[in-house]
Amino acid sequence: MMTINKILVANRGEIALRVMRTAREMGIKTVAIFSEADRNALHVRYADEAVCVGPAPSSESYLRGDAIIEVCRRLGVDAIHPGYGFLSENANFARQVREAGLLFIGPSPESIEVMGSKLAAKAAVADYDIPMVPGTPSAITDRAEAKLISAKIGYPILIKASAGGGGKGMRVVESDADFDEQMDRAVSEAISSFGDGSVFIEKYVTSPRHVEIQVLGDQHGNIIHLFERECSVQRRHQKVVEEAPSAILTPEIREAMGQAAVGVARACNYYGAGTVEFIVDANLNFYFLEMNTRLQVEHPVTELITGVDLVEQMIYIAEGKPLTIKQEDLQIKGHAVEIRVYAEDPANNFLPDVGTLDTYVRPQGNGVRVDDGFEQGMAIPIYYDPMIAKLITYGDDRAAAIQKMIRAIDEYQISGVQTTLGFCRFVMNHDAFRSGQFDTGFVSKYFTADVLDTKPDAEETELAAVFAAYLLDKQAAKPSQTQTVGPARPKSQWRTKRLG
Amino acid sequence: MMTINKILVANRGEIALRVMRTAREMGIKTVAIFSEADRNALHVRYADEAVCVGPAPSSESYLRGDAIIEVCRRLGVDAIHPGYGFLSENANFARQVREAGLLFIGPSPESIEVMGSKLAAKAAVADYDIPMVPGTPSAITDRAEAKLISAKIGYPILIKASAGGGGKGMRVVESDADFDEQMDRAVSEAISSFGDGSVFIEKYVTSPRHVEIQVLGDQHGNIIHLFERECSVQRRHQKVVEEAPSAILTPEIREAMGQAAVGVARACNYYGAGTVEFIVDANLNFYFLEMNTRLQVEHPVTELITGVDLVEQMIYIAEGKPLTIKQEDLQIKGHAVEIRVYAEDPANNFLPDVGTLDTYVRPQGNGVRVDDGFEQGMAIPIYYDPMIAKLITYGDDRAAAIQKMIRAIDEYQISGVQTTLGFCRFVMNHDAFRSGQFDTGFVSKYFTADVLDTKPDAEETELAAVFAAYLLDKQAAKPSQTQTVGPARPKSQWRTKRLG
Repeated sequence: MMTINKILVANRGEIALRVMRTAREMGIKTVAIFSEADRNALHVRYADEAVCVGPAPSSESYLRGDAIIEVCRRLGVDAIHPGYGFLSENANFARQVREAGLLFIGPSPESIEVMGSKLAAKAAVADYDIPMVPGTPSAITDRAEAKLISAKIGYPILIKASAGGGGKGMRVVESDADFDEQMDRAVSEAISSFGDGSVFIEKYVTSPRHVEIQVLGDQHGNIIHLFERECSVQRRHQKVVEEAPSAILTPEIREAMGQAAVGVARACNYYGAGTVEFIVDANLNFYFLEMNTRLQVEHPVTELITGVDLVEQMIYIAEGKPLTIKQEDLQIKGHAVEIRVYAEDPANNFLPDVGTLDTYVRPQGNGVRVDDGFEQGMAIPIYYDPMIAKLITYGDDRAAAIQKMIRAIDEYQISGVQTTLGFCRFVMNHDAFRSGQFDTGFVSKYFTADVLDTKPDAEETELAAVFAAYLLDKQAAKPSQTQTVGPARPKSQWRTKRLG
Repeated sequence: MMTINKILVANRGEIALRVMRTAREMGIKTVAIFSEADRNALHVRYADEAVCVGPAPSSESYLRGDAIIEVCRRLGVDAIHPGYGFLSENANFARQVREAGLLFIGPSPESIEVMGSKLAAKAAVADYDIPMVPGTPSAITDRAEAKLISAKIGYPILIKASAGGGGKGMRVVESDADFDEQMDRAVSEAISSFGDGSVFIEKYVTSPRHVEIQVLGDQHGNIIHLFERECSVQRRHQKVVEEAPSAILTPEIREAMGQAAVGVARACNYYGAGTVEFIVDANLNFYFLEMNTRLQVEHPVTELITGVDLVEQMIYIAEGKPLTIKQEDLQIKGHAVEIRVYAEDPANNFLPDVGTLDTYVRPQGNGVRVDDGFEQGMAIPIYYDPMIAKLITYGDDRAAAIQKMIRAIDEYQISGVQTTLGFCRFVMNHDAFRSGQFDTGFVSKYFTADVLDTKPDAEETELAAVFAAYLLDKQAAKPSQTQTVGPARPKSQWRTKRLG
């Protein structure tokens, strides 16, 4: 067992700050790395020491494993926390860290490798009774056999090109009668796209939901799960709203998914914090998708409902300490919702927006947590993920957490860039979301740009400011019981217009 | 039962914002009032409507009950939340509110009146078996009798002038041998100060701690308690650090104090949120001091350990709804600590400081709550209480909450005024506080100005800024692995000096 005295966080933005906050609470010194574009970033200012590792493009800075390890050597760092993204799931980097005599705050390179390959992962979990999406174990060319298998799986089924990707060579077959036609199309698409006509058959999961289980394992073989996170509200196949617990799991299914997740972790001798992702169908059947061998963006919702600081646990585990949390001690307390505030334009296909945070005022109050890496006046760098913040609310139950989220969204003041705040307000107010009856098709089914609440636009805000100034003048002259307003603030529920 | 659709908050600053946040979560419209000095205050901007009620001095604005009720009439307000201070414990105002057909979000005028008078309160609780500081029930003049009573109570005892106040005519008597001398002094002081030589005898509580119990009662006779808050760390007889639960109560004493508090509330037919204050001695004997018939400044620590939103409960109670929380459902989860960040100079007897918040950056992260009413650039008005913010941290246990508090204090960036942050850091790191072995004498016993951590002073900060600018220039020319810093930030653990 080792004691970590100094951690280098090989990341940037909110996750670098989040890791450093816990390190500081544990009395551990922190080292930040940064690219030239992040010179004035908050994570750089927050760390005890900070080192520039190269130019803006990640490949020349945040992905420079060699340079990062060299910084560790120079500054006497004991351990590296990789955050998410960048080098966090790079088995070679994890190995280099180990070979340099440093601790990697995450799983072993071997676990990362196994779970990084769909085939290896499938093979590894084979003995662990993990539910997988039913289908053919390998590529088939015999059409009659394919038809038999499809009938056995039950329609609808999915035909997928072996060499496929991006939906090419993928066809949904609704019934036996459609089989031949769709198979023809799939094969011909596969040949024309990949030069290879072999295909898989897989059950087509209708109304799929993305539900994942947080696990924690130590280096002594103890593995526990910390319940689920529901992440079905996605845009461009990326999560934008997450919550814990899921609105729809029963205690029995939760327990079964938890056990399955622990099985997956055990199958790859996992230690550290990890997430086992499942797809859940309309009948609450669940199937293993993949394991993310790192801390997830959405980990705070789990922290709020369990009271466990996941980064603290990761650090203890890296030090070789056995887990002190027992499965039976864990219980779900309350409900947490997270939204990702991206610099994106929901009215324009959620394309990233660039600009400067002219106004940036966070919501506050009981049960509101904001994890971010920005302050007013900062520019959103174009080189990296355009996430500005994670806004997380916590309440006694799901309805309370959602109400708090709406209040917090209304209180958030951001101007200078388009954000996903208005879109997330739409989600929180939508019947499908509120009832819990939604799936990964939420955005395509319900969202169009014109549903966006068009809060005070630039012109209105300006007018309000002028009016406020006028009122203040007037009040200075005759100071009694006149209604007034403060300086105008765009895009939030802070009052910008005179009332009454 | 009534439904409240619009609330006027007859207060300012952090408590006005705190009440309005909950109102907004409940879908209730909000009205702010403000004095001319608070024209640009955040609570004015946050409310749906805001009305100026007069000039800066409270007597001409926040205490103008008539003007406030008139605003309610004009704007169709249903209910008034008084916050703390100002009109919150003014029975006449509560009565006027009722007579105007409005709801007062607080107890009845009758309850306020009873608990507002020490004598009436004592009489009211007489039948409820509430432990009181042992002493003579009324003023005595017979010295022999006084001596007998003192022996029965047990030394040390306190002689207090009947007409007293501010410590005048108050003497501690350590033993029977000292009695006559101290009695002479007390009587002569009482005569010279108040023209009345009659005195009380009371047990002198050694090593006193201030522990209070939060209660909630509805209009149907249901009363529950929400455990204790320990508020023994005080300066100038005012609380500055609070926590829940107390570090020293046993479950049995907690239960007994809770029962006593419910008894006090029952004795005055209490409804709403209230606080029953006790003094606790070194042997954990507890004695009723008084009841505060309003929301307390330090209520957030109770919210964090119970999960109950006290303002939400107050609103439901005012509407006439029965309490849905049962005593047996409540349990203490984790530990919460609050510090009050005052614009005061701890090095100068905690005298209020005036100035502008040149830098004002709040700490963030899991388990950190900041309730405040300021933003960077605002001036601290000289007319009101100089509290800038309440910083509250929450952790699994007391040690975790304290560590988080130290991290959060270090992260808080305030410049332009002196604050109690450094003093609170001293408290958090002090053995007496950490061990739980402290009393209301903490400050006088342990604190002197020279123990204050003198973090980067103005000169150092300036130097760091110059150096940072130099480094940034240098790095622009040769961008690789050079250590750097961001813009200098005073008075916090954000890095301001080049390292390595």
